[in-house]
Amino acid sequence: MTTQGMEGLPPEAIEKALESVAFDESGLICGIAQQADTGEILMVAWLNREALRETLATGQVCYYSRSRKKLWRKGETSGQVQRLVEARLDCDGDAVLLLVDQSGVACHTGRRSCFFRSFDENGLKIISEPEVSPEQLYGASGH
Amino acid sequence: MTTQGMEGLPPEAIEKALESVAFDESGLICGIAQQADTGEILMVAWLNREALRETLATGQVCYYSRSRKKLWRKGETSGQVQRLVEARLDCDGDAVLLLVDQSGVACHTGRRSCFFRSFDENGLKIISEPEVSPEQLYGASGH
Repeated sequence: MTTQGMEGLPPEAIEKALESVAFDESGLICGIAQQADTGEILMVAWLNREALRETLATGQVCYYSRSRKKLWRKGETSGQVQRLVEARLDCDGDAVLLLVDQSGVACHTGRRSCFFRSFDENGLKIISEPEVSPEQLYGASGH
Repeated sequence: MTTQGMEGLPPEAIEKALESVAFDESGLICGIAQQADTGEILMVAWLNREALRETLATGQVCYYSRSRKKLWRKGETSGQVQRLVEARLDCDGDAVLLLVDQSGVACHTGRRSCFFRSFDENGLKIISEPEVSPEQLYGASGH
C-alpha cells in the first residue's frame, strides 16, 4: 500500500459513484479514516454529499460537522490535514473507508488516533498520550 | 498485536465503561470491526447498549440490526463469527473500534471485507471477489 496522495477524480466519475452512496435521512454517510500505510484507525466522522464530493475532487479529506452544521475541512484550523490515498464504499453504501496520509495527529486532544481508550477489567484505560497540546493545535481561540 | 480472544469483562467494569459511551438519539453507537493482526477493516455496523454489553461480556461480537430491530449475533446464521480481541472507544464516545479475529468472511456477499468497492476515475471499481457464495453462507433460506 502506498501513501502517495490521490490526485482527485474527474467530476463525471464522482457523480456516477455518488449514485451508489446511500446517505441517511440526515443526508450523511459514516466515514472511517485509516492511515494508509500502517492500517491505524485514526477517527470516525460524517460526510454529506458535498463533503464527499469535495474529498474525492480535491484529494483532501473534508467532513461535515454535525455540531457546527457546516463543511469541516480537516486540518483547516490545526494544520493536521488528511491527504486522501483511496476511498472505498461498503456493500450497502452507507459507510466510506478513507485511506489517508495524516499530517500530525487526528484527534482534537492532540493524540494520533481518537480511539485512545480501551475497555478493560477496570472500565476504560487510556492507551495513548497527546503528542501535542490542544493549545498548540488550535491556539488560544480553542477549536 | 495478538489475535488471542478476550475472555470477557466483569459486569462492574462493563457498567462503569458504559457510562462513558454516548449512544445517539436512537440508542446506538457506530462500531468498526478491524481484523486485529492485519489491520484490515472488515465492516461497519451499529450497537445498542445491550449489544455492546453482550460483546464485552462474552468476547463474541454482537451488533444491533436496525432493519430487523433486534440483536444481531454476528455469525449466528452464517458461522462467520467475530471473536473480540480488544474494544476501544473514541474521544467523544460515539464510536467503538472492535479489534477482532474474523472467522471466514465478514460481508454477506461472501467477501472478506464489506469495503470491496473503490472510487476511481470511472466511478466505482470492485476490488475483491467473493470467497464463498451467499448460498453457502446462509443456505437456501437467505439471510
